Amino acid sequence: MAKKEIILTGDRPTGPLHLGHFVGSLRSRVELQESCDQYVMIADMQALTDHAKEAEKVRASVFQVALDYLAVGIDPAQSTLCIQSCIPALSELTMYYLNLVTWNRLKHNPTVKQEIVQKGFGESVPAGFMTYPISQAADITAFRATLVPVGEDQKPMIEQTNEVVRAFNRTYKCDVLVEAKALIPKIARLPGIDGQAKMSKSLNNAIYLSDGPDKVAKKVKKMYTDPNHLRVEDPGKVEGNPVFSYLDAFGTDLEKIAELKTHYERGGLGDGTVKKYLLEVFLEFLEPIHKRRANFENDEAGVMEILKKGTEKANETASKTLSAVKRAIGVDYFL
Amino acid sequence: MAKKEIILTGDRPTGPLHLGHFVGSLRSRVELQESCDQYVMIADMQALTDHAKEAEKVRASVFQVALDYLAVGIDPAQSTLCIQSCIPALSELTMYYLNLVTWNRLKHNPTVKQEIVQKGFGESVPAGFMTYPISQAADITAFRATLVPVGEDQKPMIEQTNEVVRAFNRTYKCDVLVEAKALIPKIARLPGIDGQAKMSKSLNNAIYLSDGPDKVAKKVKKMYTDPNHLRVEDPGKVEGNPVFSYLDAFGTDLEKIAELKTHYERGGLGDGTVKKYLLEVFLEFLEPIHKRRANFENDEAGVMEILKKGTEKANETASKTLSAVKRAIGVDYFL
Repeated sequence: MAKKEIILTGDRPTGPLHLGHFVGSLRSRVELQESCDQYVMIADMQALTDHAKEAEKVRASVFQVALDYLAVGIDPAQSTLCIQSCIPALSELTMYYLNLVTWNRLKHNPTVKQEIVQKGFGESVPAGFMTYPISQAADITAFRATLVPVGEDQKPMIEQTNEVVRAFNRTYKCDVLVEAKALIPKIARLPGIDGQAKMSKSLNNAIYLSDGPDKVAKKVKKMYTDPNHLRVEDPGKVEGNPVFSYLDAFGTDLEKIAELKTHYERGGLGDGTVKKYLLEVFLEFLEPIHKRRANFENDEAGVMEILKKGTEKANETASKTLSAVKRAIGVDYFL
Repeated sequence: MAKKEIILTGDRPTGPLHLGHFVGSLRSRVELQESCDQYVMIADMQALTDHAKEAEKVRASVFQVALDYLAVGIDPAQSTLCIQSCIPALSELTMYYLNLVTWNRLKHNPTVKQEIVQKGFGESVPAGFMTYPISQAADITAFRATLVPVGEDQKPMIEQTNEVVRAFNRTYKCDVLVEAKALIPKIARLPGIDGQAKMSKSLNNAIYLSDGPDKVAKKVKKMYTDPNHLRVEDPGKVEGNPVFSYLDAFGTDLEKIAELKTHYERGGLGDGTVKKYLLEVFLEFLEPIHKRRANFENDEAGVMEILKKGTEKANETASKTLSAVKRAIGVDYFL
């Protein structure tokens, strides 16, 4: 029997999750939990690396993100839901790994370099932010993850992790740590409602999984379409038109969608009509999610219990890795 | 009643301790333990920041350093002897503090800058080494230390710690962390047996506390004196002459030492005669230390038990600080 793949995935809790998260990662987590040993981590410590001054937002988002997970169907009986800050071994592993990476190497991490520009840190990059790829290496290796679902732009993070793995095993003449593979999703990114290439909280162009019907309706109404499609009778563009990207991603009646596309391109189909249909599609998609979310929302203690249980399991695994790591280094005085 | 000062002190276990350590720190620890609440930490994780590839040396030195501590009279009933890597809270605190310090600030730490040159790291400075001042801030604050005995050159470390303390209390609107004061020893540095200003393992000019009488005799024999004192009848220089520095530091018969100095400066006193006396002084000083060391050396389990007990107490204190820190940040889900 082939060994089960172990997956580590998760999110920084800096706000609720949106449809982009669903398409990019949540959906595949629900699928993967059937066949893989999946850890879904709420990375609150990583969130603090660039939100140290907004810790309240991080704290509040932990519960919201957990609700989003449960609402989309991540099943605590199949996936291990855990909170990063409650797993001390992750910090300890980070400390040992930091000695095996040069300062220069951290400086040249392409993902971090790009994020520093995006976040406008200037000269004030927090040291914790510069070192977070090593904290991620600790997360991945702690659970002996073999697969890590990431976007294309996050591939350098997995490379950094594997560099740490090889450096550790080489330095301490062991095979304690396991290399991981990036699992890049096939699906293209979901655009924002403003037509930008990426749906993103920071771009303020997202539809959240927790958005109620009224909010969704409002967002659909002001949604960007083809700016040259001025009159109903004009031919419209489907490509780059988020309305159709969303129909492709969430619609189930493929025939109808194909028809709408042809009609739109030919002319004679108003944006209002397509948007009306899109809203139906969204509400149908979101209804079971909202239902499950509401149930869990009313049971905060139950949700926290799920996180506690998952975190306990995660702690067991991570502690075992830490013990093996400390034994390999030789700092296992009382183990 | 004035509150007791809390002291954090310790050493990187990268080899046995020498007479320079005794004069610079060990002696005052033996005195301070009477009136202060003193934690003496064997900083093995810090040692790994620049000895990741010599972990075996670090491991072996932990026991040797503990023996040195016990041999000079650090009393486990008065001081808390502990091992850094067995106190997970220290790693966790480091992670939270790293978010409150900029990458640039770390780069400009004068002590670290100097050490990078001394250690010849070139472009390959380990990230763990660059960040060790923050790990030190974690050590100091974890035990709520109010006094940290350091050399003049280590003062920037205490400044960095206090910057973290202020940033933390300001950011999380609390007074959880306590500022510490540097306790700079009055005593000048002990020179090396080669006449260099500092006795140091890396300069290979040290007399170790564990050196037996024969080894000490050999080291005294080849000790640097006044290079212009060629014939017995020549006048000799006392200043900058390590033989006299050692007599000042370890001799008890002050009258005799004053006499020897005058005679040496006048001429007519051979180096051999002074060295013979110095050897007597050394052996008298080292005898009780060697006796205690031998007793403990034969009881490895007993020594490890002392370290275990101390580490347990240290863990209690550090865990309390970590809980307060996590509560202040808000990541105290299950506390």
